[in-house]
Amino acid sequence: MLLILDAQASPETIEALKDRLARMGLVPHAAGHDGAAIGLVEIMDAKTRAELAKLPGVRKLVPMPEPYRLANRAFHPQPTLVRVGSAEIGGRAVVLMAGPCAVESRAHIFEMARLVKAAGIPILRGGAYKPRTSPYAFQGLGEQGLAFLKEAGEAHDLAVVSEVMDASQIPAITEHVDLIQVGARNMQNFSLLAALGKLNKPVLLKRGLSATLQEWLMAAEYVMAGGNEQVILCERGIRTFETATRNTFDVSAVPVLREMTHLPIIVDPSHAIGVRDKVIPLARAGIAAGADGAIVEFHTCPEEALSDGPQALYPEQLTQLVRELDGIARAIGRELS
Amino acid sequence: MLLILDAQASPETIEALKDRLARMGLVPHAAGHDGAAIGLVEIMDAKTRAELAKLPGVRKLVPMPEPYRLANRAFHPQPTLVRVGSAEIGGRAVVLMAGPCAVESRAHIFEMARLVKAAGIPILRGGAYKPRTSPYAFQGLGEQGLAFLKEAGEAHDLAVVSEVMDASQIPAITEHVDLIQVGARNMQNFSLLAALGKLNKPVLLKRGLSATLQEWLMAAEYVMAGGNEQVILCERGIRTFETATRNTFDVSAVPVLREMTHLPIIVDPSHAIGVRDKVIPLARAGIAAGADGAIVEFHTCPEEALSDGPQALYPEQLTQLVRELDGIARAIGRELS
Amino acid sequence: MLLILDAQASPETIEALKDRLARMGLVPHAAGHDGAAIGLVEIMDAKTRAELAKLPGVRKLVPMPEPYRLANRAFHPQPTLVRVGSAEIGGRAVVLMAGPCAVESRAHIFEMARLVKAAGIPILRGGAYKPRTSPYAFQGLGEQGLAFLKEAGEAHDLAVVSEVMDASQIPAITEHVDLIQVGARNMQNFSLLAALGKLNKPVLLKRGLSATLQEWLMAAEYVMAGGNEQVILCERGIRTFETATRNTFDVSAVPVLREMTHLPIIVDPSHAIGVRDKVIPLARAGIAAGADGAIVEFHTCPEEALSDGPQALYPEQLTQLVRELDGIARAIGRELS
Amino acid sequence: MLLILDAQASPETIEALKDRLARMGLVPHAAGHDGAAIGLVEIMDAKTRAELAKLPGVRKLVPMPEPYRLANRAFHPQPTLVRVGSAEIGGRAVVLMAGPCAVESRAHIFEMARLVKAAGIPILRGGAYKPRTSPYAFQGLGEQGLAFLKEAGEAHDLAVVSEVMDASQIPAITEHVDLIQVGARNMQNFSLLAALGKLNKPVLLKRGLSATLQEWLMAAEYVMAGGNEQVILCERGIRTFETATRNTFDVSAVPVLREMTHLPIIVDPSHAIGVRDKVIPLARAGIAAGADGAIVEFHTCPEEALSDGPQALYPEQLTQLVRELDGIARAIGRELS
Repeated sequence: MLLILDAQASPETIEALKDRLARMGLVPHAAGHDGAAIGLVEIMDAKTRAELAKLPGVRKLVPMPEPYRLANRAFHPQPTLVRVGSAEIGGRAVVLMAGPCAVESRAHIFEMARLVKAAGIPILRGGAYKPRTSPYAFQGLGEQGLAFLKEAGEAHDLAVVSEVMDASQIPAITEHVDLIQVGARNMQNFSLLAALGKLNKPVLLKRGLSATLQEWLMAAEYVMAGGNEQVILCERGIRTFETATRNTFDVSAVPVLREMTHLPIIVDPSHAIGVRDKVIPLARAGIAAGADGAIVEFHTCPEEALSDGPQALYPEQLTQLVRELDGIARAIGRELS
Repeated sequence: MLLILDAQASPETIEALKDRLARMGLVPHAAGHDGAAIGLVEIMDAKTRAELAKLPGVRKLVPMPEPYRLANRAFHPQPTLVRVGSAEIGGRAVVLMAGPCAVESRAHIFEMARLVKAAGIPILRGGAYKPRTSPYAFQGLGEQGLAFLKEAGEAHDLAVVSEVMDASQIPAITEHVDLIQVGARNMQNFSLLAALGKLNKPVLLKRGLSATLQEWLMAAEYVMAGGNEQVILCERGIRTFETATRNTFDVSAVPVLREMTHLPIIVDPSHAIGVRDKVIPLARAGIAAGADGAIVEFHTCPEEALSDGPQALYPEQLTQLVRELDGIARAIGRELS
Repeated sequence: MLLILDAQASPETIEALKDRLARMGLVPHAAGHDGAAIGLVEIMDAKTRAELAKLPGVRKLVPMPEPYRLANRAFHPQPTLVRVGSAEIGGRAVVLMAGPCAVESRAHIFEMARLVKAAGIPILRGGAYKPRTSPYAFQGLGEQGLAFLKEAGEAHDLAVVSEVMDASQIPAITEHVDLIQVGARNMQNFSLLAALGKLNKPVLLKRGLSATLQEWLMAAEYVMAGGNEQVILCERGIRTFETATRNTFDVSAVPVLREMTHLPIIVDPSHAIGVRDKVIPLARAGIAAGADGAIVEFHTCPEEALSDGPQALYPEQLTQLVRELDGIARAIGRELS
Repeated sequence: MLLILDAQASPETIEALKDRLARMGLVPHAAGHDGAAIGLVEIMDAKTRAELAKLPGVRKLVPMPEPYRLANRAFHPQPTLVRVGSAEIGGRAVVLMAGPCAVESRAHIFEMARLVKAAGIPILRGGAYKPRTSPYAFQGLGEQGLAFLKEAGEAHDLAVVSEVMDASQIPAITEHVDLIQVGARNMQNFSLLAALGKLNKPVLLKRGLSATLQEWLMAAEYVMAGGNEQVILCERGIRTFETATRNTFDVSAVPVLREMTHLPIIVDPSHAIGVRDKVIPLARAGIAAGADGAIVEFHTCPEEALSDGPQALYPEQLTQLVRELDGIARAIGRELS
């Protein structure tokens, strides 16, 4: 529900209104352009709505048809900017994140960090807790991997991002990374989302394999409802009948989400297509469609990667990627950060 | 990998073989008809395979192309029977489970239990931790709900099943229920699956909305790899382009899984179709296709249910369901338990 | 649009009303229970609607939200019965159709017809025009195949069904078969559908691989709008992310369509699953869900079939199928014709 | 099958080889780089293959695992260029096509042609035979519409493209257009494809709503097998579970097809997304992914369009589209034609 405020109302009237709302058990959120409205996320009955409509300072009530509230562009017309290290995601600059699928060793992640920095990319990725479809496959280095990642990032002045799989890993992940990733398979792990909502740390929320855009925004809403509004959405391919493209990279999601939400949107072409040679064209497509950034996997020696080698770019392809994405960004009035 | 045993080998040879495997770090599993083979789940290199082929008592090695091992019918040709209270699931008898979507109050779940018992159904369902797509919706009664469910089950001599959403809920759920449900959205919550693998309590594993049969069996494998082999699979509809049927109830999964795995398979028509009037035809279809049972939602007053009212059967429809399913079961040489 | 008639109106008033409609360029269709309404399929403007509401004999106007009209259950509440040879499809009896994928030779289709008759099945299938995904594969015997099929049907007193691929084949198909099949790939070949609408011969309309139920009914509407209301719908599996079941047999479509339309609904488990051993369980599921019949492929020697051998039942399985389907049908108050 | 030729073989030997193949009933196609191989599309038995391997001039046989042959990049490593009017599709230049969904009147299509020309676009689109899901909707102006389109194209020196729905429309369409479109719903209308294979006129083959890339290439193969190798593929969105993006624009298809086939690939963002404001971002994504062109709908007054108004760009948006696509093309070393 949006309470559109009376433009003539005094600051005192608005304060009194907020107090009144609080006494009704409602939490007022700043909404609309320049605070022209108060947003309420609670589900209300008709009597409460009638009462609200008559409060001093309220010009009219605008119901929100969508079930996502805090994530809704109607609540928050300006784009949200999420700061991760030196980068700001969601603004004019296009932000890249790159690194290996998994942190494999201290030496390796340091070498990867060096290459990321050399390519001019501000954020290093690396998985420590790995959600693998087989219980018999490499499951990541765990907290040790997080520590290597953090060290490597600090050594090269890079922010770092890594995935959390379970609420029990939150203390460790919070201590080591700048951006916490929720993987596609956990997009509707509501217990985990609620726990992340209590942190003061940005969350990179990947789209579930068969999540609708609305379900995805509802997952973001779970995090935001807890008080953490620093959520970045990441399109990584959806599951369809077509297997020749591995997943189907849903590039349409970028402009459609832009209208639905104020949250930043990035793309992950590596997991979408799963084949090195197609990662660059898809990254270009994502930025051309208006994404705020991209996260890609690369590896010094993809053939020996402990996971997902076939989708990792070679180091020299990373350079090509940066160059081409910068050209695309400039063609639509943006630029690489 | 299957080690097919030499039929002439003495019990001592087999014992020595198992010891040797253990010293190699491998865990021997009984496999094949009447223990005619030893199954190994570990991923091995060529050298280890060559060594195994030469061990006394081994007639030949049969590689398993599928990544699921313990769940594989090749490992365990006989159907697995899972006992839940007085019922045995996976045998000739078809087993039903029924109850409300959510435990709503002590009095209500007692009344529901009475009706379940009167219909001749051995297992009572009721959600206490509810995975809801909106953070603002009713989230279930939690541990209090589990306690009511357990009491109601005991009062009417029914086994009970309820859903777990997170590893932190495992102590409470284990104490109160006979069968632990993993919901569709958590089918690839690998942390949760691994934790359930350490219990000695049956698990009802629902299929993820866009999980392939193989991914589903890999999720079962996660539980089984921890030592808990009491897994029941539950088809509950997959996500497709068609929305007029809510989800698409994948009845083909029943006979196809039968060939892939020895685990019992039941169906959940209520969540698949989401509309009361279509639940009975789909339950019939599931049993006709060979499912070992069905789980359905009903409610004394669906119009007032706290969640999923439109898909809940009326109490009198439950009676019709039992009668028709028994007729279908008998037409294919089975019967209701 | 439905014009609900005034129950007190005299037959003369109703006749005058129909004349008036005709002069307005509208075609009145009998609709509602016992002709209690007149259905109009035309798209109308507000002025025409207002005029209609005031005509003598009209009690009220009921708009139809669905774009399908003649196929709509609201238009025609009683189930439509379609007669094919001695069988009536859409009534209490469940009707089977069986035969080879393709007519292969005169002798073979005669032998197949003998087996169909012996199994007590009233309708023989056999393809003569084969829609093959490869231009280099066997394309069917064409008109010669149709002639063999017709002869074999006559010799064994069976009705026959075969597929048409193109309007240019209509004269030949009309001359030789009792039921004209439209394949899944032609479900939205609107030119073909319109041409079939001008015939007085029943049409078996298979569902397109990714057709929604509404699009399917709109395809039926194309045939019916031309004047041919003898349309039978056939569910044959839809395309989804799951390939382990070949297509996904959408058994939910049966009860959902029942509510949307008065047309008969049958199932084709052979093309849905594509594997012999799973055809019988799926046929049972379809009948258990309420289908009016099933069409299955069988072959005297599936290993040598010119097309789709792996999905063809062996002759002895046909006998098992008939027996089990009869049991299922009886369990829900129906029986095999 | 590819016959790799002996690099030392004399022209006479190669001629003799081709004669021999022809006497065996095989049609030799030039294949490989610079005619280094002979391609054969026929399905062959082992005996024939053995015989081929021994023929003078043959170095070795390379089987083709894919069922598409003439469309296969292995057959024809160089990209195919298709000329439509003054434009060449499949080369370095990116080619646009634009116009209304349907030809609505002579005056309107002339005005549209003028705007297309002014925007620097070389090809005018306009539907005359319209495949509509409802038999009661506007079905297009038919042959009259084709005549208007042709006139408008000639008046403004534009090539024209329009859709054919049925083999009976081929004479009219061939007479009036430079490029014949096959719509998504007819992608597997094999009778129509075979008929188009006999023409000497380029074919724009849209992808079916649920066609795999391989099925799409097999549809192209149907046309090519008849002798018409001028086929352009057009991605226009596939059907998935997500409806918020109307269809799902499968941008991954562009780079994946590039590896599979030598045929040109363009994109149709208008039908994919169905909403004006998102057409430009998706067109940009398609070109950024490497497409050879795009076809878009626009209209002088979309609000009054006889079909698909909501997806038609305004004329001023067409100018923006051209500018942005040129920038994108240049960023990847191409340019607009």
